[in-house]
Amino acid sequence: MKSTHHCAQLTKADIGQTVTLAGWVDTIRDQGGIVFVDLRDRKGVTQIKLEASSNPALAKDIAHLKPESVIAISGQVAQRPEGTVNAALPTGEVEVEAAALSIFNISETPPFPLDDAGGDKVNEDMRLTYRYLDLRRPKMRNNLRVRHKTAKAIRDYFDAEEFIEVETPALFKSTPEGAREYLVPSRIWPGQFYALSQSPQQFKQILMVAGVERYFQIARCFRDEDLRADRQMEFTQVDVEASFIDREDVYRLFEGMLKKVWKDVLDYDVQTPFLRMPFVDAMNRFGVDKPDMRFALELVDFSDTFKNSSFKVFQATVANGGSVKAINAKGLADITQGELKSLEDTAKLLGAKGLAFIKVEGGEWKSPIVKFFTNDEKAELTKRLAIEDGDIVFFAAAEWERACAILGRIRLDAAQLLVKRGKLTIRHDDWKFLWVVDFPLMTYDEEQKRYVATHHPFTAPVPEDIQYLDTDPKRVRGQHYDLVLNGMELGGGSIRIHQPALQKKVFEEVLQIPRDVVESRFGYMLKAFTYGAPPHGGIAFGLDRLCALLCGTTSIRDVIAFPKTQKGQCLMTQSPSPVTAKQLKDLHIQTVMPVEE
Amino acid sequence: MKSTHHCAQLTKADIGQTVTLAGWVDTIRDQGGIVFVDLRDRKGVTQIKLEASSNPALAKDIAHLKPESVIAISGQVAQRPEGTVNAALPTGEVEVEAAALSIFNISETPPFPLDDAGGDKVNEDMRLTYRYLDLRRPKMRNNLRVRHKTAKAIRDYFDAEEFIEVETPALFKSTPEGAREYLVPSRIWPGQFYALSQSPQQFKQILMVAGVERYFQIARCFRDEDLRADRQMEFTQVDVEASFIDREDVYRLFEGMLKKVWKDVLDYDVQTPFLRMPFVDAMNRFGVDKPDMRFALELVDFSDTFKNSSFKVFQATVANGGSVKAINAKGLADITQGELKSLEDTAKLLGAKGLAFIKVEGGEWKSPIVKFFTNDEKAELTKRLAIEDGDIVFFAAAEWERACAILGRIRLDAAQLLVKRGKLTIRHDDWKFLWVVDFPLMTYDEEQKRYVATHHPFTAPVPEDIQYLDTDPKRVRGQHYDLVLNGMELGGGSIRIHQPALQKKVFEEVLQIPRDVVESRFGYMLKAFTYGAPPHGGIAFGLDRLCALLCGTTSIRDVIAFPKTQKGQCLMTQSPSPVTAKQLKDLHIQTVMPVEE
Repeated sequence: MKSTHHCAQLTKADIGQTVTLAGWVDTIRDQGGIVFVDLRDRKGVTQIKLEASSNPALAKDIAHLKPESVIAISGQVAQRPEGTVNAALPTGEVEVEAAALSIFNISETPPFPLDDAGGDKVNEDMRLTYRYLDLRRPKMRNNLRVRHKTAKAIRDYFDAEEFIEVETPALFKSTPEGAREYLVPSRIWPGQFYALSQSPQQFKQILMVAGVERYFQIARCFRDEDLRADRQMEFTQVDVEASFIDREDVYRLFEGMLKKVWKDVLDYDVQTPFLRMPFVDAMNRFGVDKPDMRFALELVDFSDTFKNSSFKVFQATVANGGSVKAINAKGLADITQGELKSLEDTAKLLGAKGLAFIKVEGGEWKSPIVKFFTNDEKAELTKRLAIEDGDIVFFAAAEWERACAILGRIRLDAAQLLVKRGKLTIRHDDWKFLWVVDFPLMTYDEEQKRYVATHHPFTAPVPEDIQYLDTDPKRVRGQHYDLVLNGMELGGGSIRIHQPALQKKVFEEVLQIPRDVVESRFGYMLKAFTYGAPPHGGIAFGLDRLCALLCGTTSIRDVIAFPKTQKGQCLMTQSPSPVTAKQLKDLHIQTVMPVEE
Repeated sequence: MKSTHHCAQLTKADIGQTVTLAGWVDTIRDQGGIVFVDLRDRKGVTQIKLEASSNPALAKDIAHLKPESVIAISGQVAQRPEGTVNAALPTGEVEVEAAALSIFNISETPPFPLDDAGGDKVNEDMRLTYRYLDLRRPKMRNNLRVRHKTAKAIRDYFDAEEFIEVETPALFKSTPEGAREYLVPSRIWPGQFYALSQSPQQFKQILMVAGVERYFQIARCFRDEDLRADRQMEFTQVDVEASFIDREDVYRLFEGMLKKVWKDVLDYDVQTPFLRMPFVDAMNRFGVDKPDMRFALELVDFSDTFKNSSFKVFQATVANGGSVKAINAKGLADITQGELKSLEDTAKLLGAKGLAFIKVEGGEWKSPIVKFFTNDEKAELTKRLAIEDGDIVFFAAAEWERACAILGRIRLDAAQLLVKRGKLTIRHDDWKFLWVVDFPLMTYDEEQKRYVATHHPFTAPVPEDIQYLDTDPKRVRGQHYDLVLNGMELGGGSIRIHQPALQKKVFEEVLQIPRDVVESRFGYMLKAFTYGAPPHGGIAFGLDRLCALLCGTTSIRDVIAFPKTQKGQCLMTQSPSPVTAKQLKDLHIQTVMPVEE
């Protein structure tokens, strides 16, 4: 029995036709001698009906079906009796009167309910163990479709822009000095290893040297980092590089791409151009390099106000070159002791000694520190933070970047507390795109006592800042850009260095990477650059996170068909697992179990 | 300086305009005080011209450029003087009179010529070491574009057919009993390993159980096999699976896909439906399961003719159940001793004792064996092989499959000898598609003394043959199909077993895989099948080989941007390579160098 229609297809126009449908038994019920089956396929649901008296044998067979069994059913399309029409379904005006049944498989009873609400309550390990059931839930089915449509929109866009997709190797060279990578032992070369590619960065730059000019790839990448909620061992990166372009070209290109994705996937019109914000402003105003622009609660700097304050903590911070900053969590004066404690713990985790605050209730400023403030200081606070009754103001006093980071995090947490109280609305589909630009090219690493690349060592300096490379590296801005959406970093990239001499100088003199390391890691790139490297730049961003945002979920595991757990396990297939001695011998390795302590 | 046009864009319509072009110096020459530069980008070439006397400083700068340097040049578009028009170029009627120059990078002299003819003569290791130069050659540039267009056409096709692309993990479970796989040690789970996925086979079947119904993926796969000319450690597979379909649906779907690929990429109309040929016929007529149908030279069976022959070798072979087969290499009687010896060596490699032949020259049958033949036998040979003067007939007498295989290989080699002589034409673009069907489900493995799956253990038997599963497994045909093009296997697939009981029976009773192995490798699949598995089937084929055929090259390395050598090395980045003790310690492994013997 082959299906003639899918399960979201039949309408009143088909009444009287004999059809065959195939799919899964969604629900089955007996109502006074009439058996009803909701038959489901990837497209939708159609109601099947049989009066038991008209065909007792068939009715018996149908009655024995269990939900999630796979069947095909033939019969005539009929109008549903008055009062039983289901307007919510495309097929809601009709039903199929069963005449023949073919059973492909009878299902066991699933270990958890397969509707969205029921499935969401199940613990995630269970969902991952039975992923083939979890993926039948409408929400998960939709997530897979959204992911497909997103990748398709991206590929169509770049194809139309004359980019070509080039596949680069997953089995790459190990770079022991870099981030932790997955190693793959070589059978042919005893004692040698490949590393799984963490990003096609070097290959894509080589492709520019090869004259490809416009490259993109949706590439699988691998990173052996500790897994957080939004990390996976393997992830999918949209990777792009082009020659003879500048930052403005990149912005235009990617805004166009996101416009198309949002249109194709959500039928939503994204407004372009996006807002741009220098890194320093993002830190000063939002305390983070990926500001969530869906709500205000901005940081305000009071370093000037408190530079001569009699509150010694603030005064000394400013005297030592640090900053005093504050935010007004408007309407959050009703914060509980527990919530306040939790905010304070967060601030301490980020290096604060405590979390100074002023709660304004009944016209009174309640705070252990307010007694140190002059009237002028209070007036300044009131004015610049627009303090009103019912507000609570939080302070951070520390080295500039730390003060920003502390209040940046308090800002997010306070916003969540306001959401909980219904005092603030943050919609997942209130799309606030933002370019963060003008990052410092280098950051001083206190531990290593040297400068390290803020993003990566291939980023080109802003031309007018090159003069400070030797004298004041901190001052050099990079031609780097991050694309931020609703507080998440979607991706980032830069215009690259294309001059071999400048690249060598950055490696060896500015970043002080030992010459032999430069040679073993990047020697081939430096060499390639001497054979005619064009100016080039690009961007890379995570497809998983992009899809999670489009689907309105906070976990990238919800947009990956078969994700690993946070401990790196596939619960469905039971991986990783031990292997045989022969396998290890072939690869010239043996395992060394850690000694228990 | 930003380019206003690309290098294949300017025509007579642009004369008088001031333009800027950017790209690589393709050639540079000085003709009596006039400097000419052919400037190249990914789209084409434009001629730049400068009379040295008009701007001596600029002329000097241009004269110092070296080929492959990267520059931008501004100037006015002018008509080329009469007699200097290059009709072969889209831009051949115009030239740009240089007025300003920007130098991005001066190139060293490339180690080999970057034109197609010159580059083809270079040894491949050199090309791979300097891949960024090799990829600048027109042929290689075109190969990358063809690959992009092919993947795009495939994705567009399946999207239009309502398939969704789902990404499956590269980090999979190790299956020690299967083919050799790459292992990835786990840091979090000491002593445990992932394996790099050899194919998404199991995940795609799980996706069918998940109700996806129509899945495809262009997936990177990994196989630690000894590398041949057409193998790579990592390769790209077009992987497809659908539910509620039968073999006819698969044929229609893939014929449509290939039609679209050939149209989009080569603007060639592929005729459908494709020829279909049972495995037995392919072996009998062409001696191989992937016949090259671009030429005849078919095998003819003479077992009946020689069953009572006085030539004992033939007679005994037939008496023992074997076959006597022959081909007529028409017009190859002028074969040299060396060529004949080479064919004989090939036959011996395949298990023949020698290579019996009859050479027909000057009306005479020259052969050491012809004296044993009766007139009737000779008449039969003459008639069924259409023997004429100038022909040579080769024989194989062996067990059926071996006799087929020997002559199948002799057929291909003889065809090449005929091509060399200009007596046969085999065009790479004479596209002969073919479905090979009705393979035996199982093959008896003499070494293991048990049946093994001819393709894989998930292939469903042809329904009318299921009855022989217990009594005569050899007789059971599988619902498997191979897609063959010009003697290459493009891909293969099957309708799968979807009944958990039948799958278990095939694993445990027919293939006699130990129960614990079945449980550890396939337990989760068998379990999944008990929760409502639909009937399903699919196909997988190699994108690399498909692209190689489309590009008319015999090496898949020519259609992979950064391939490994046959020893698994990346010559450009020097991988694989040793790693640090710390990296190994983190992964709980150590290397064990093989003892020299």
